[in-house]
Amino acid sequence: MNRRRVLKILGKILMTEAMLMVPSLIVSLIYGDGDAMYFIGTIAFAAIAGFILSCVKAPERKMGSRDGYCIVALAWIIICIIGAVPLFLTGQFRSYWSALFEIVSGFTTTGASVLSNPEYLPHGVLFWRSFTHWVGGMGVLVFVLMIMPMENENSMHLIRAEVPGPVAGKLVPRMKKTSIILYGIYTAMTAILVVLLLFGGMNVFDAFATAFGTAGTGGFATSSTGIAGYDSAYIEIVLGIFMLLFGVNFNAYYLILIKRFTDALKIEEIQWYFGIVGVSVIAIAINICHSLSAVSVSLRQAFFQVSSIITTTGFATVDFDKWPEFSRHLLVLLMIIGACSGSTGGGIKVSRVIVMVKSFFNEIRHIINPSSVTAVRANGKPMDKETLIAVRVYVASYFILICLFTLVISLNGLDFTTNLTAVLSCFNNIGPGLNLVGPMSNFSCYADWAQVILSVAMLTGRLEIFPMFMLFSKSVHRR
Amino acid sequence: MNRRRVLKILGKILMTEAMLMVPSLIVSLIYGDGDAMYFIGTIAFAAIAGFILSCVKAPERKMGSRDGYCIVALAWIIICIIGAVPLFLTGQFRSYWSALFEIVSGFTTTGASVLSNPEYLPHGVLFWRSFTHWVGGMGVLVFVLMIMPMENENSMHLIRAEVPGPVAGKLVPRMKKTSIILYGIYTAMTAILVVLLLFGGMNVFDAFATAFGTAGTGGFATSSTGIAGYDSAYIEIVLGIFMLLFGVNFNAYYLILIKRFTDALKIEEIQWYFGIVGVSVIAIAINICHSLSAVSVSLRQAFFQVSSIITTTGFATVDFDKWPEFSRHLLVLLMIIGACSGSTGGGIKVSRVIVMVKSFFNEIRHIINPSSVTAVRANGKPMDKETLIAVRVYVASYFILICLFTLVISLNGLDFTTNLTAVLSCFNNIGPGLNLVGPMSNFSCYADWAQVILSVAMLTGRLEIFPMFMLFSKSVHRR
Repeated sequence: MNRRRVLKILGKILMTEAMLMVPSLIVSLIYGDGDAMYFIGTIAFAAIAGFILSCVKAPERKMGSRDGYCIVALAWIIICIIGAVPLFLTGQFRSYWSALFEIVSGFTTTGASVLSNPEYLPHGVLFWRSFTHWVGGMGVLVFVLMIMPMENENSMHLIRAEVPGPVAGKLVPRMKKTSIILYGIYTAMTAILVVLLLFGGMNVFDAFATAFGTAGTGGFATSSTGIAGYDSAYIEIVLGIFMLLFGVNFNAYYLILIKRFTDALKIEEIQWYFGIVGVSVIAIAINICHSLSAVSVSLRQAFFQVSSIITTTGFATVDFDKWPEFSRHLLVLLMIIGACSGSTGGGIKVSRVIVMVKSFFNEIRHIINPSSVTAVRANGKPMDKETLIAVRVYVASYFILICLFTLVISLNGLDFTTNLTAVLSCFNNIGPGLNLVGPMSNFSCYADWAQVILSVAMLTGRLEIFPMFMLFSKSVHRR
Repeated sequence: MNRRRVLKILGKILMTEAMLMVPSLIVSLIYGDGDAMYFIGTIAFAAIAGFILSCVKAPERKMGSRDGYCIVALAWIIICIIGAVPLFLTGQFRSYWSALFEIVSGFTTTGASVLSNPEYLPHGVLFWRSFTHWVGGMGVLVFVLMIMPMENENSMHLIRAEVPGPVAGKLVPRMKKTSIILYGIYTAMTAILVVLLLFGGMNVFDAFATAFGTAGTGGFATSSTGIAGYDSAYIEIVLGIFMLLFGVNFNAYYLILIKRFTDALKIEEIQWYFGIVGVSVIAIAINICHSLSAVSVSLRQAFFQVSSIITTTGFATVDFDKWPEFSRHLLVLLMIIGACSGSTGGGIKVSRVIVMVKSFFNEIRHIINPSSVTAVRANGKPMDKETLIAVRVYVASYFILICLFTLVISLNGLDFTTNLTAVLSCFNNIGPGLNLVGPMSNFSCYADWAQVILSVAMLTGRLEIFPMFMLFSKSVHRR
């Protein structure tokens, strides 16, 4: 790996981050909560450091896929380290590590918080915290590619390492154009949501912050009461629908944009995704309806919560930790499945679940008739072997890492359900878990070191395992 | 699949079961608790029904591997259905389903019980309950092959479907001889253990029952106090060592028997197995030592419990549910890993874990250098692709099934830790879980229907997933 080139790209990323902080600076100037200076300082530092790094002379060699993975991992780490500074400066966090946890949670669109009262934060910082969801959802590198010049092939490696899912979607041959299309669709959908929320009576600040949290499937709320505080069926339904939409593979929107509607509907992953949501909503609605006044209320609550959990957003309108055990268990299962690949959501991704289920039945067919070799098919076409191996190894690695992370944070002494759901929640970038990290609680119950471990879990989950491990691979450090 | 031949083989199995009940009948006659008639009735029924079925005329066609899987699944189901009858007749079980759970737990060497006071059972039934561990550990079909005439190739399919692990060990070309060697080693080791236990002051009945539970890595105790009741460091150490030994791949013992000692030590799975045990014992000993008087006590307790859980035996000398969280979490992880393939233990099996870990690093290497294709190696040789696919699909299917079983029994309303560890415990054939199904509790907290579901989980886990699903495959029922 060429270190100079890595430094150069990290420089570009720092400059981009400085730029991304400008809207938050403007918000802080408007509200005058005294947090403008935190932003000015951080922006100045990031911009200057970034400019110096970007001046490093580097050979214009082609980038390999391993370079792509390493750069993406380093970019995410550095953007979080700098991004945590304004939060830490407010003094509302018990340590820099807690502030780092909060911002990692923001960029990875987890939405897990260590604050019981986020409304005590100054408005600029509160805006920044939600804005990181929006940037992290579609991808930091995708954003960088959109605004910075970069060779086409090199940028492909970056997108492949950052965009979730087993097969990176390449909408058009030019990666720069792909990223512009993606961010275009994303921005348009976010804008529509902001308007709908304003229409529902939300104030301008909350409408933007909530829309960012929804679009990135993040889940940070601007107050301790969260979405439940609005107590509005309209907002609940609008958010429920938009969370689901942001969990859809963005390739579908591109297909719709170029008017290939039937192709968009034929994507197998999307059919399964809506199928799983439908079944889960009905199952939970039946399970919780006895304690509620009307069937419509239980359907609405079930829909909102299923949508929030499967897309890994993590908004809550009710304390689902108090729901009957079957519903709680089902939500944990949905946490694991997650949204579609190529969306802003986390989890294993529906497409991988499809591959695993099909592989299972293929294996049974193979045992019944050992001479038959049937390929696993996706969207009617047989999948190539490399992808199949990658998916199977990914799913198994996923469970191994969940076990290991849970084991490590168990040293903090909290109970099993809390630890397991905290790790699932962080790794899948959801937000709330059960018990001590339930939807009405927060992650301050964990010690600083455990919060750092959980931050690593969030980054590992967001970048889909391999980039983070690539950093520790010996052969990467060899030239 | 030829139904006549299936019936014929099931007939042989019923006759074998009748024969296997004779020792228990003798025990019941010796103690005179009045349970002899239960056995006489069941033996008569099984022998007559078995004889009639075995007289069915069936073509001497060759058996396919799918026939092997189906026969093994049916054999285990029928042997449990008949085996539960003497237990049910004692009146100590709240329903036939509870008695069935108990005997499935016996044959699958799970050792999970629904009884709080097993000592209330008559001696013959108590003996039968422990004896099922011994038969189930090495395999019902392996036993049948040993005593009944069967074509060599056909019996290979049966052994492959029944013996745990990704690759069925074929010690010698003739399967009949293989099964005789396996049961020979098994019987000799059990006999040594009985002598050692008698030497430690156990009475004859308990020595046999405990040895059966240890050899099959089952874990049924003969009284409510279990192994803890003896309060003997000698018995604790002897059982700890023997549990570990029965969790070793039996191929190693065969190699030792034919004096290829170094080959036995070179088996990679065994090196990993003892490595995992060593690390876990030290970690737990450090974690629990502050609450104990001496380091030796914490080491001994940690060794016994690690040995008991990783081999999926499930004996307990202390209430490890009260250990610090880290130790409890580590035990759950060991539950998942399980013992060596080709042993009497359950779990995913160490060999599969090795494959997954190696696949993970292979995938990283592949990303770093996409042109390199490195095979996963086991014992120095590259593994064949079929086995690799089977292992990866197995591990993923394993986690999917754990999730689904947990979701289904959550309808019973118990908490998440209880349900998840109950399913892990049943599926991996361990015995105790945590919380309500902890080592000092039992499974009577579950309703009858949930016990039936858990019985299915035990059988699915013991037969390593695919045979049970094969029964529901359409193409199996086609001729």
